[in-house]
Amino acid sequence: MRAGLPVRAALRQPMSAVFSIPLRIYYEDTDAGGVVYYANYLRFMERARTEWLRSLGFEQDELSREQGVIFAVRAARVDYLKPARFNDSLEVTVTLGRVGTASLVFGQDVRRTAEVLCTGEIKIACLDAQRFSPQPIPPSVLSRINAWRKS
Amino acid sequence: MRAGLPVRAALRQPMSAVFSIPLRIYYEDTDAGGVVYYANYLRFMERARTEWLRSLGFEQDELSREQGVIFAVRAARVDYLKPARFNDSLEVTVTLGRVGTASLVFGQDVRRTAEVLCTGEIKIACLDAQRFSPQPIPPSVLSRINAWRKS
Amino acid sequence: MRAGLPVRAALRQPMSAVFSIPLRIYYEDTDAGGVVYYANYLRFMERARTEWLRSLGFEQDELSREQGVIFAVRAARVDYLKPARFNDSLEVTVTLGRVGTASLVFGQDVRRTAEVLCTGEIKIACLDAQRFSPQPIPPSVLSRINAWRKS
Amino acid sequence: MRAGLPVRAALRQPMSAVFSIPLRIYYEDTDAGGVVYYANYLRFMERARTEWLRSLGFEQDELSREQGVIFAVRAARVDYLKPARFNDSLEVTVTLGRVGTASLVFGQDVRRTAEVLCTGEIKIACLDAQRFSPQPIPPSVLSRINAWRKS
Repeated sequence: MRAGLPVRAALRQPMSAVFSIPLRIYYEDTDAGGVVYYANYLRFMERARTEWLRSLGFEQDELSREQGVIFAVRAARVDYLKPARFNDSLEVTVTLGRVGTASLVFGQDVRRTAEVLCTGEIKIACLDAQRFSPQPIPPSVLSRINAWRKS
Repeated sequence: MRAGLPVRAALRQPMSAVFSIPLRIYYEDTDAGGVVYYANYLRFMERARTEWLRSLGFEQDELSREQGVIFAVRAARVDYLKPARFNDSLEVTVTLGRVGTASLVFGQDVRRTAEVLCTGEIKIACLDAQRFSPQPIPPSVLSRINAWRKS
Repeated sequence: MRAGLPVRAALRQPMSAVFSIPLRIYYEDTDAGGVVYYANYLRFMERARTEWLRSLGFEQDELSREQGVIFAVRAARVDYLKPARFNDSLEVTVTLGRVGTASLVFGQDVRRTAEVLCTGEIKIACLDAQRFSPQPIPPSVLSRINAWRKS
Repeated sequence: MRAGLPVRAALRQPMSAVFSIPLRIYYEDTDAGGVVYYANYLRFMERARTEWLRSLGFEQDELSREQGVIFAVRAARVDYLKPARFNDSLEVTVTLGRVGTASLVFGQDVRRTAEVLCTGEIKIACLDAQRFSPQPIPPSVLSRINAWRKS
């Protein structure tokens, strides 16, 4: 996944639908520099992925109990372009890059209106909920994901 | 706002040994007000209780696996006296108030040298690790706790 | 552990309106015990207070810039009744207890439908934004707060 | 910084000294999956960079006050190899990749004894503390950094 960053290329080629959630910045999200603490963008991006999966009809706790799988982050690449601040009203987006049999690559932005503050490329693996070993994405989930991407 | 709190009374009467850990404040701990975010003092106090228990020879993951019990916070009372700031080098203390058969009350301070920045009274319950129902503190743990308190 | 807390008494007497926000629990909020980490309830309660103040027409960053005041937590008392879990859809409430010239006491609950999981009593002080010294709550804010309470 | 990831190449070529800090995992660091929450590795890496800078004789609050500069994260790339768990006793390392006039690239690992759990490449920019515009790293800092790298 390292050499040449195929992720970005993958994100450019196949068109993907865009999902987004609103996000308000609270004191808990900021640091003494007066801006959002850099690790917290990963929290925001995960909230958006969770809501995206929910919007497709899947709850992660049910997937774990009923299908025996969890989704775990394998790699994250974040670019910090402009700082978000206390009280900002933002948007976090979700688009799909490469969809593999056992992994997904997401492109995600944190935006203030038209302005992109932060971009992320997040690689997720589907794992056996007990042994944490790679597992195919359940077919019911995969077909919904592929249908959404082209929506 | 203090008067009447039986916890405090309990803390005053039985003498207790004092345990403490050093604490450095990082950016992650602060907020845009330039000071430590108020919820984070509870994180610091738990780190100190964990290290205190470890100093008595007990690891919480082992207690859960081998004795089937966990320690859960039932109530917390925190007074914020002065703000801690980025880069501060602090100390977090642990003293014991009331020791019950299935619960413990801790008195904890966050200090900058002699200056007390924040005080807490934390009530912990011993619970069955599966059902989360109250459970007597294992005798081996209780006897170590009582011995420490008088040390 | 409750008896004697004057705060509670204050909360019982003056009737107060109730404000609330919805809250979804994400992975970031939980810990390895499988439940919401205890310090995070303070984050949730602050989000609700921030949205309550916003609903009255006040933004904290504007109050700081234009009126020179900030609101800081002086004391927090939290009772943990039942654990919240990953994916829970909750509600965080705000009611007003005592309203002083330079301080406010809030009663706050975190609820799952009718079930109260966690209750808090949070004492807030109005401070000079620069010197952190107690400051009267600006009259425009105080009158809105008092009007809301009786609404 | 995107095409071809020069960062990694830069990390391989110039030899760098290695700095590290110990790290204990507490409940606050974990999530309901039973492992460390993915965003928290960025917190750990920043603690290590802060201690590294301190070990060279520089405090970030002094640099801000006296030299008018802050260090801000521009990009982060994290690979999650194996999960860290509650109570783990870990090590966080700091090595230096490319050293520019106004930026630094760090290579960082989170390790459990010999096992690497997580690796990061973190690009830091030196900014004017007020305007957040790029600023040369102060010469006194740069010379200490270069001396350390070859140590």
